[in-house]
Amino acid sequence: MTTEEEALVRANDRSHVFHSWSVQGAINPMPVAGGLGSEFWDYDGKRYLDFGAQLVNLNLGHQHPALIAAIHAQADRLATIQPALANDVRGELAALVTDAAGESFAKVFFTNGGADANENAVRMARLFTGKRKVMAMYRSYHGSTSTAISLTGDPRRWANEPSDPSVVHFHGPYPYRSPFYSDGPEQETERALEYLEQTIVLEGAATIGAILIETIVGTNGVLVPPPGYLKGVRALCDKYGIVYIADEVMVGFGRTGEMFAYQAHDVVPDLVTFAKGINSGYVPLGGVIISRAIAEYFDDKMFPGGLTYSGHPLACAVGVATFGVFERDGILAHVKDMGERVVEPILKGWLEKHPCVGDVRGVGLFWAIELVKDKATREPLVPFNASGADAAPMAAFVAACKAAGLWPFAHFNRTHVCPPLVITEEELRRGLAIIDDALTVVDRALTVADATTA
Amino acid sequence: MTTEEEALVRANDRSHVFHSWSVQGAINPMPVAGGLGSEFWDYDGKRYLDFGAQLVNLNLGHQHPALIAAIHAQADRLATIQPALANDVRGELAALVTDAAGESFAKVFFTNGGADANENAVRMARLFTGKRKVMAMYRSYHGSTSTAISLTGDPRRWANEPSDPSVVHFHGPYPYRSPFYSDGPEQETERALEYLEQTIVLEGAATIGAILIETIVGTNGVLVPPPGYLKGVRALCDKYGIVYIADEVMVGFGRTGEMFAYQAHDVVPDLVTFAKGINSGYVPLGGVIISRAIAEYFDDKMFPGGLTYSGHPLACAVGVATFGVFERDGILAHVKDMGERVVEPILKGWLEKHPCVGDVRGVGLFWAIELVKDKATREPLVPFNASGADAAPMAAFVAACKAAGLWPFAHFNRTHVCPPLVITEEELRRGLAIIDDALTVVDRALTVADATTA
Ligand SMILES: Cc1ncc(COP(=O)(O)O)c(C=O)c1O
Ligand SMILES: Cc1ncc(COP(=O)(O)O)c(C=O)c1O
Repeated sequence: MTTEEEALVRANDRSHVFHSWSVQGAINPMPVAGGLGSEFWDYDGKRYLDFGAQLVNLNLGHQHPALIAAIHAQADRLATIQPALANDVRGELAALVTDAAGESFAKVFFTNGGADANENAVRMARLFTGKRKVMAMYRSYHGSTSTAISLTGDPRRWANEPSDPSVVHFHGPYPYRSPFYSDGPEQETERALEYLEQTIVLEGAATIGAILIETIVGTNGVLVPPPGYLKGVRALCDKYGIVYIADEVMVGFGRTGEMFAYQAHDVVPDLVTFAKGINSGYVPLGGVIISRAIAEYFDDKMFPGGLTYSGHPLACAVGVATFGVFERDGILAHVKDMGERVVEPILKGWLEKHPCVGDVRGVGLFWAIELVKDKATREPLVPFNASGADAAPMAAFVAACKAAGLWPFAHFNRTHVCPPLVITEEELRRGLAIIDDALTVVDRALTVADATTA
Repeated sequence: MTTEEEALVRANDRSHVFHSWSVQGAINPMPVAGGLGSEFWDYDGKRYLDFGAQLVNLNLGHQHPALIAAIHAQADRLATIQPALANDVRGELAALVTDAAGESFAKVFFTNGGADANENAVRMARLFTGKRKVMAMYRSYHGSTSTAISLTGDPRRWANEPSDPSVVHFHGPYPYRSPFYSDGPEQETERALEYLEQTIVLEGAATIGAILIETIVGTNGVLVPPPGYLKGVRALCDKYGIVYIADEVMVGFGRTGEMFAYQAHDVVPDLVTFAKGINSGYVPLGGVIISRAIAEYFDDKMFPGGLTYSGHPLACAVGVATFGVFERDGILAHVKDMGERVVEPILKGWLEKHPCVGDVRGVGLFWAIELVKDKATREPLVPFNASGADAAPMAAFVAACKAAGLWPFAHFNRTHVCPPLVITEEELRRGLAIIDDALTVVDRALTVADATTA
């Protein structure tokens, strides 16, 4: 019976579902039967600790009772209404979000996800400044619609080129593999800012409308900016009349232990894009938080963008409930505690313990473990953007985790620790122990490879 | 109490919600308290017949019990899961959709709405053909992300230019204001196709990857293609190796009395984009239906696009329920019956009765009434893209409808009749009577204006 069900799910998927970012014939997606909290399970009842929180969107975990209750309640009241009419939960959520973002923010433009949030933030910045060029980082992901993929600084952009010709990519700080030959975080900040200013000047400040950055680079490596970097970016934006857009699609809503990640960096962007954590993705929702100045600019000017589902009531109701859970359950404090007391010491210990662990970095429940062939040379365990046989060592790591009941987030030569924020200490320790064991498998393969070479 | 509630909704909206396509300071969105079937109401309990089905998405009306039940059931099972895993309702809906689209279709790529559906269809066509240019119609709307707004052939594109330079706009058939100086539908088809072929040849067939057209142009006028036109487009696409993309975001899922509008035109596109009617917008959902040939192309090649919420289970569950309602309640037959027996005869009568009615056209529950100053010259009641004082005559029409309890769909010099497909005959007749009266108000204003001029 279960097997029949599973077979049907698999058959429909293979025959009829076209998948994101995939060679369609090369994948065989696992049918998922259910989920709860930090776990989901397949049709054999095998349970997986969800260490990627799906796509780092499931901040409050699978099937959180308060969020499910909000769906029920709103569905019974009013599932949807068009953007041009006023709706109670839409307005309530907009008020909560602007309030959480800080004093200088006034309004929210709601979208369906992260890509269209970035599209609309860039649209606002271009009109507000009258300048079209946008600067974004290498090693970044901003979504897959045309402007969003043009802004993206990872290989997902390549097959979609030519890009928007008014996007310029620059290098951000990355102390472990410094593009600036720095000797540490302080020098990294200094040099990264000098380099950024030079690039602004050479591109022409008079042509640059916005700088868009993930407050902490997510998929491309949990690159926490060294102290002072974001403040420096803010200062350059002020100096040159550039709008500072913070992409908080992945880090917003508690991932780092702050409501928004920029709040730990003593800095206030002009526009903040969000999605994912706003309602854990229970109903598609994203948006742009807009500063007072930019909101006012559009008081007497047409904003030339829109979408059918802007401010969708069902999606917004789950967002409102999310704020309730954060407050009631002290989510932010829990995230900080888990990060500082559990994740950080364990991961730092692996730097000593595992030959394959080159670097660990992160904050809150947002960490990367960078796997290397050799600690001294820092050569990545697998080449940049590897696939197939080249990626085998990472595939082996992933398989070891899954076999032991953990669904890891893996990207290039890294695995990230970014479980639901509601994860318990026991679950977190159990999951980290599984990763620990899988790293030992990688260590061993390295030793064997060494022996073979020698 | 009610007044207090209403005041709060209005205050939050005005202070914190940034609205689509609006001069933010010039709007004052009406707070909506609830909806059921073909009606919604404000906080005073004033009811409106919803003759735009919100943004022509609410095909099964407000709060349809079967759709609400599907939300409840799926929310209790599994609200969301990432695109890379297999999910039962996602696969079930993909199978239903491909089956409904016809034999030559194999797979569905799910998105959040219509804009990203078009973005991804164009991405597929470009990769499949190796040709980048896309032809789209003047008088069209395809969404507001970068590629979608570039494709758009109405004024909403202007403020977002420069557009994607590889988009080329062409004129489609429009018998009432023929760009081809035709004497009727047959000649319109012939000339529109000759013009299209010339344009293809002059643009360079070897550079054109796709032609994207709304099967029936929606917001820009309910322009039903004259007989043979779409077959001619299909033949040109075959002749020149061009992918034919049908945008069925507004017309798909029963609006015209067919599941997909192209099915009444004896034609099969290569890619079909949808959103809105798939689940009445109860949960954001859109997608691309993919021909066997194009799906197979990606069997051994990476598809370089994706989004966090592709194939969202909650959204898909409402889609599956929608198919159930269509079947059980004979929605398609009802739409055809209402269109032929109720709407068409009444609207055609207005051509005689109302001096201000220049043209009526449509099919199923998708009709336009084109208002003119003068039947002989066909001068529009308000200028193209009018706003403010220039648009006053249309604003007066809209106000008259609302006062009488009908929420009209109005665009430029037209009003459209596109209520929920579940509308009863009584409601439909009641709504049309309100429009009838409002047209009389317009007639009278024209007579007064004439008298003043004379
Ligand atoms: C930082 C960041 N920005 C934008 C996006 C795009 O969001 P979506 O997939 O909802 O379009 C993502 C998705 O992973 C993201 O991580
Ligand atoms: C024909 C057509 N295509 C695309 C779209 C864009 O859909 P969305 O607003 O969901 O992005 C619309 C929206 O009205 C439409 O009518």
